[in-house]
Amino acid sequence: MTAVSPRPATATLLDRFREVRARTDRLTRDLSPEDQTPQSMTEASPAKWHRAHTTWFFEEFVLAADPGYRPRDPAFRFLFNSYYEAVGERHPRHARGQVTRPGVAEVAAYREDVETQVADRLAAGTLDEDALALVELGCHHEEQHQELLLMDLKHLLSGNVVQPVYVERASDLDPDAAPVPLRWTHLPGGLTEIGDAGAGFAYDNERPRHRTWLEDVDVAARQVTNAEWLEFVADGGYRRPELWLSDGWAAVQQHGWSAPAYWRHDEDDGWTTFTLSGRRPLVAAEPVCHVSFLEADAFARWAGHRLPTEQEWEAHASSGHEVHGGLLDPERCHPGVAGEVTLGEVWEWTASAYLPYPGFEIAEGAVGEYNGKFMNDQHVLRGAAAITPASHARVTYRNFFPAASRWAFSGLRLAR
Amino acid sequence: MTAVSPRPATATLLDRFREVRARTDRLTRDLSPEDQTPQSMTEASPAKWHRAHTTWFFEEFVLAADPGYRPRDPAFRFLFNSYYEAVGERHPRHARGQVTRPGVAEVAAYREDVETQVADRLAAGTLDEDALALVELGCHHEEQHQELLLMDLKHLLSGNVVQPVYVERASDLDPDAAPVPLRWTHLPGGLTEIGDAGAGFAYDNERPRHRTWLEDVDVAARQVTNAEWLEFVADGGYRRPELWLSDGWAAVQQHGWSAPAYWRHDEDDGWTTFTLSGRRPLVAAEPVCHVSFLEADAFARWAGHRLPTEQEWEAHASSGHEVHGGLLDPERCHPGVAGEVTLGEVWEWTASAYLPYPGFEIAEGAVGEYNGKFMNDQHVLRGAAAITPASHARVTYRNFFPAASRWAFSGLRLAR
Amino acid sequence: MTAVSPRPATATLLDRFREVRARTDRLTRDLSPEDQTPQSMTEASPAKWHRAHTTWFFEEFVLAADPGYRPRDPAFRFLFNSYYEAVGERHPRHARGQVTRPGVAEVAAYREDVETQVADRLAAGTLDEDALALVELGCHHEEQHQELLLMDLKHLLSGNVVQPVYVERASDLDPDAAPVPLRWTHLPGGLTEIGDAGAGFAYDNERPRHRTWLEDVDVAARQVTNAEWLEFVADGGYRRPELWLSDGWAAVQQHGWSAPAYWRHDEDDGWTTFTLSGRRPLVAAEPVCHVSFLEADAFARWAGHRLPTEQEWEAHASSGHEVHGGLLDPERCHPGVAGEVTLGEVWEWTASAYLPYPGFEIAEGAVGEYNGKFMNDQHVLRGAAAITPASHARVTYRNFFPAASRWAFSGLRLAR
Amino acid sequence: MTAVSPRPATATLLDRFREVRARTDRLTRDLSPEDQTPQSMTEASPAKWHRAHTTWFFEEFVLAADPGYRPRDPAFRFLFNSYYEAVGERHPRHARGQVTRPGVAEVAAYREDVETQVADRLAAGTLDEDALALVELGCHHEEQHQELLLMDLKHLLSGNVVQPVYVERASDLDPDAAPVPLRWTHLPGGLTEIGDAGAGFAYDNERPRHRTWLEDVDVAARQVTNAEWLEFVADGGYRRPELWLSDGWAAVQQHGWSAPAYWRHDEDDGWTTFTLSGRRPLVAAEPVCHVSFLEADAFARWAGHRLPTEQEWEAHASSGHEVHGGLLDPERCHPGVAGEVTLGEVWEWTASAYLPYPGFEIAEGAVGEYNGKFMNDQHVLRGAAAITPASHARVTYRNFFPAASRWAFSGLRLAR
Repeated sequence: MTAVSPRPATATLLDRFREVRARTDRLTRDLSPEDQTPQSMTEASPAKWHRAHTTWFFEEFVLAADPGYRPRDPAFRFLFNSYYEAVGERHPRHARGQVTRPGVAEVAAYREDVETQVADRLAAGTLDEDALALVELGCHHEEQHQELLLMDLKHLLSGNVVQPVYVERASDLDPDAAPVPLRWTHLPGGLTEIGDAGAGFAYDNERPRHRTWLEDVDVAARQVTNAEWLEFVADGGYRRPELWLSDGWAAVQQHGWSAPAYWRHDEDDGWTTFTLSGRRPLVAAEPVCHVSFLEADAFARWAGHRLPTEQEWEAHASSGHEVHGGLLDPERCHPGVAGEVTLGEVWEWTASAYLPYPGFEIAEGAVGEYNGKFMNDQHVLRGAAAITPASHARVTYRNFFPAASRWAFSGLRLAR
Repeated sequence: MTAVSPRPATATLLDRFREVRARTDRLTRDLSPEDQTPQSMTEASPAKWHRAHTTWFFEEFVLAADPGYRPRDPAFRFLFNSYYEAVGERHPRHARGQVTRPGVAEVAAYREDVETQVADRLAAGTLDEDALALVELGCHHEEQHQELLLMDLKHLLSGNVVQPVYVERASDLDPDAAPVPLRWTHLPGGLTEIGDAGAGFAYDNERPRHRTWLEDVDVAARQVTNAEWLEFVADGGYRRPELWLSDGWAAVQQHGWSAPAYWRHDEDDGWTTFTLSGRRPLVAAEPVCHVSFLEADAFARWAGHRLPTEQEWEAHASSGHEVHGGLLDPERCHPGVAGEVTLGEVWEWTASAYLPYPGFEIAEGAVGEYNGKFMNDQHVLRGAAAITPASHARVTYRNFFPAASRWAFSGLRLAR
Repeated sequence: MTAVSPRPATATLLDRFREVRARTDRLTRDLSPEDQTPQSMTEASPAKWHRAHTTWFFEEFVLAADPGYRPRDPAFRFLFNSYYEAVGERHPRHARGQVTRPGVAEVAAYREDVETQVADRLAAGTLDEDALALVELGCHHEEQHQELLLMDLKHLLSGNVVQPVYVERASDLDPDAAPVPLRWTHLPGGLTEIGDAGAGFAYDNERPRHRTWLEDVDVAARQVTNAEWLEFVADGGYRRPELWLSDGWAAVQQHGWSAPAYWRHDEDDGWTTFTLSGRRPLVAAEPVCHVSFLEADAFARWAGHRLPTEQEWEAHASSGHEVHGGLLDPERCHPGVAGEVTLGEVWEWTASAYLPYPGFEIAEGAVGEYNGKFMNDQHVLRGAAAITPASHARVTYRNFFPAASRWAFSGLRLAR
Repeated sequence: MTAVSPRPATATLLDRFREVRARTDRLTRDLSPEDQTPQSMTEASPAKWHRAHTTWFFEEFVLAADPGYRPRDPAFRFLFNSYYEAVGERHPRHARGQVTRPGVAEVAAYREDVETQVADRLAAGTLDEDALALVELGCHHEEQHQELLLMDLKHLLSGNVVQPVYVERASDLDPDAAPVPLRWTHLPGGLTEIGDAGAGFAYDNERPRHRTWLEDVDVAARQVTNAEWLEFVADGGYRRPELWLSDGWAAVQQHGWSAPAYWRHDEDDGWTTFTLSGRRPLVAAEPVCHVSFLEADAFARWAGHRLPTEQEWEAHASSGHEVHGGLLDPERCHPGVAGEVTLGEVWEWTASAYLPYPGFEIAEGAVGEYNGKFMNDQHVLRGAAAITPASHARVTYRNFFPAASRWAFSGLRLAR
């Protein structure tokens, strides 16, 4: 992963660092030690682990670069490394939920200790350009984990029969209100440029900005809604093999999919979905959420359209046309991050596999493991979700998950 | 499971009930909420779950027998039922570590609430004979879970790179002290009786007392020691297929067994083992612990002897001969339960499959699910371990685990 | 495995050897090379493999004992060893169906070659006592594989949508004919002896003959019939957890069991079962076949009775009382072996785990791996089935399979 | 899948049909029934199945389109359908090796019968345009299966300890001869066109021809050789995580990869590889074969280069520059198809995921299931292999396999 120039002034970076760290603390403030300990599946991690791992990143790449630095605890390097092979051996990923020590209080102390040391160095102006770039990278890294933390928490809590509430929500939209009608935006084809142009922070995988050829395309002005997905379900969408990719049909049969993740239908309550505010009635006008790429692809085929490529998506998002979610209720998913979302309410699956851009270069050293090594059998999502930190959302951002993943806040937008 | 007569006086049962409940609380007093939440494998359960489940047993079978009783929380019935099919659906066993709510504090309140209500009824003398028998059964059930709790905790903590200490231990025996020499006790054959005679509490699977024919046998006067097991290891015991049952050799290859569970060998520290007091040097004179039936069987074959049957074991234990462990250090495994052990320091695998005694009867209703339904592909262990509550150990007790299990405090005694 | 004395005269052994070998050839005469090649599950083996493996046994243990013997093909030692660790490495069991070379014709030539050499030595009287005992053992070994061959073939053919016929059958019994009424034989308890007394051939696991104590018991005079099993099915037998062992209920849910293996129910044909003569109507009066121990145990509980122990079974079978199957139609399962069955039409699950008899000794060397090493997590079946060679059936014979196995010709007899 | 126009004259199509069918027969002429029956892994199929399935394709899509047609055997429709959900239920893929009936002789008769009927209709000119297009498609389909048949056969035979020879080979190249030196071809960037232009047959996934933007690139003039791969191995290529995609490193550890599939190293013979002519010394100058995409990607990173995209590959292959394999020994892999190869000796992994071209349309009906439904988590290979029928190789052809597949004849070519 490479950092950009010009670099923001050190004073600003200190503010940003403090702000990002404080947000993580706000997100976990109301979670008990019990809530922060388990891991509900291999792909997810405990909240406690996210808090420690994001701290480890600053310790490993910023503080430990100083040869005189003495690690707070050598075990943390083993426990809280995620996948950086270059840094050394690490605790097995599937067993993160079994690390009961250090506990939540020790992790909080670890956070505070590392945070103070980084902040001191930032305030004193003793960090060199490389270290400053790594602090900035660490802030973005922590924002990414803030979203993962909420995804993982939702997955964990959803399995509890009491369907717990993470954050109270005052009111709900009318479940039966009509969605915004579907309109299409026409984009004329031609040679265009996509990718990060270098003016602000971006991950390595958003670079280099490069030329690409697009044909004419229409892109939907809003995301697919729950109302439309209910039509798909009612039309036998999950029972018709001809609508599905081969892997999709296999997943339907293997996992018994018959609706998006967290949806449930029973006689008393009709359709409901599990949210970070507990189980709630399904709101027809909201963007559909927690569908896999395989489902998004089948839906698009059923609708007689297709998913946009990520090139089309970025051209559309950069075009000045209105680009939004369904009902635009930023409180919907997580009130605690209200008002921060600008690009849409759910991530949008694209037709594109996650591959390097032409001319892509991997950064030197361990941070270079960041993005490039996942470029196999993953699919690109674009935009952002209601739980994405506003400062982490940008038009060139490339999110990615395997085709069958459903625990991200993932929906779709159609193209034709 | 059937209860015995004559029944102890109600006053005594109240004391016993309070004592058993208090011991569970002592065992978990120093565990953090984090320590009490995860599940390290499907066969193990979180400490929090053990505390809630043993409480649920009293609520379900004693309090809820009263038609006017209103359950504290209907979700608890679903969450804390272990395997009683007759009681209704239950939370999946492999996902017990994901139940973050209720948390430890709520479980403590649940314990207190149910405990008070049961104690009140015991004090008031309002429970009928059946209910009193179920209180007594519940006490034994809770003692059984006290041992499981420690087994499961040890397994959980062992996976942590920091090798945590559950309970401090002041001193250690000399790791190289010589074991007690091996002597044999001769038992003449003939028609004998084994099984519970009905004078005190016993589980259903210990009944009825019945006649059995034994041939002459010699039984070792002490358990196999770590020193002897090290000889087996040094002699290639884990690399010689001719010593093993077919399932045993398959397990060696599948799991990569090369020593008992928790043992480790490295250049700096030699042989060590993980204990509830952290990782410690292996003590040669102590009974070997955490071996599977498959290993115990291979060891016996290597030694030119065999395991006793459970009939031989019980005849031996009832014979008045000295029956003890290796070094007789009751502090070894868990000082918190020091001085309570009389039958030996580790459970002893026998040659017997876990099957019903002639004339075995299953009790009516849900409590009848207790023991009989596990009588398939399990092996009997006899005696008790250092972590077994003294009041839970008796000469007719039949413990059982699958042949490849190693997380119980299991060792062996030879016969010839 | 140990052989018995007095040894039969050499001339007789040659006759027996030829007879056994010829029977294998008869059994596979009508099978195509395609039929003899695949393996339908890990536990089963190709017909071609059975033919080669039984031959390898004679080559390895009889011919190769002669230092001057030059093996026909060194690869055969690797390919056709079954589980004798002492003999060396071997082809992985689950991949036996992928060995296309040697083909059927080469296997036939291998059979003929080894057969001739063994017969020559038998005729010439050049084999010593040990070698003669091994020839006799090899004959019994081959008879055992004759039965396995038919079991495995049935399993393989059953998966083919055309439901092939292995052997034509002229006529069928009336599917609705009433079974023989159920009567009980009373056996008085006391000290009794079971196990092989040494007058003829027996496997090592049938020895030594030993004393055992039995209580009074009634044993059913005939096996459980299809008619009775249909009542169990109709009474919700496969849907009531209280009837099942814990492992049994898990198997019902995992495998979706709702009737014995090979049974099928459809609207047009009612209940049918797949046989070596293709799919046929279920005959009510015949003994139920292809049930697991777990099902047999649940059935017995449903019926208010239990399975006999193997000690009870043998005492009963030795008692002079009538001991037979259901309808006594020896043509039912496999006409090619008609008239050879005396002990019953299906093997009978007992309540006993497969364990060594008191005083059991394992033979020296590789043949010692024969029976003892499987004495873990298996259940004893007694009697014989319609496909068992008559000369392989005896009252002390101990057959064994895992609790969930259903591809043996296994049924049950009740006790009370 | 759609067919092209103008259509070849019917007379020519009959010739082609006969030729393709005869080639399948030649390929299996020397295989025993045993060789043609098993399936060595789920992804592979028995030779017998390939022969029947390619015939079923003509029966289902050409003959059965005639309402008066009576299928030869209704079971064949179930047994020999591969994955066409629209056609109906089918035999489970993983169990193709257990279909012993119909046998090889019946399959041959089935082939002859269907072949005669199709040929008669072709000769009589009674097939309409759609049917003729399907005959042509069926010929290409059968050619594709000819290659699969050889891949699957090689995989099956490789597991046999005798390392069988499918086809004799007279001579070998010098294992130590030096490869052709590596040269690079420069391609200037710009707007270019790729995809099938419509003049001959092509699969649906090669269409439509479309514009794409390419940057400047150098493409290697020959494929990577065994000599180069040996350097990669010697340099710790399989032990250095920094060279691998995350999925690649996981595969290395899970499967224990340390060299391409079929390679073996031992002290006596050095490096050898299994071929359709048995095990042979590795020839340094030949193109490396049987590497996965994950290995190809790691190799390219090690070499400091990358894989070309499929757009770059096609632009290069269409450029008039020399495009060949390593040593150009067409006899290397399978002498029986000597002289038919023009595009190279092994397929070449590209950097591209297998996705629809812009404007891709799926054909109506069951044949439309042909290619589009596999467009997920697969990688594109271009070119052809020594075992690819010459008439099946073309510059626009898009082959595809999962990233970890190694049983195709797959190698690589570098770009920079």
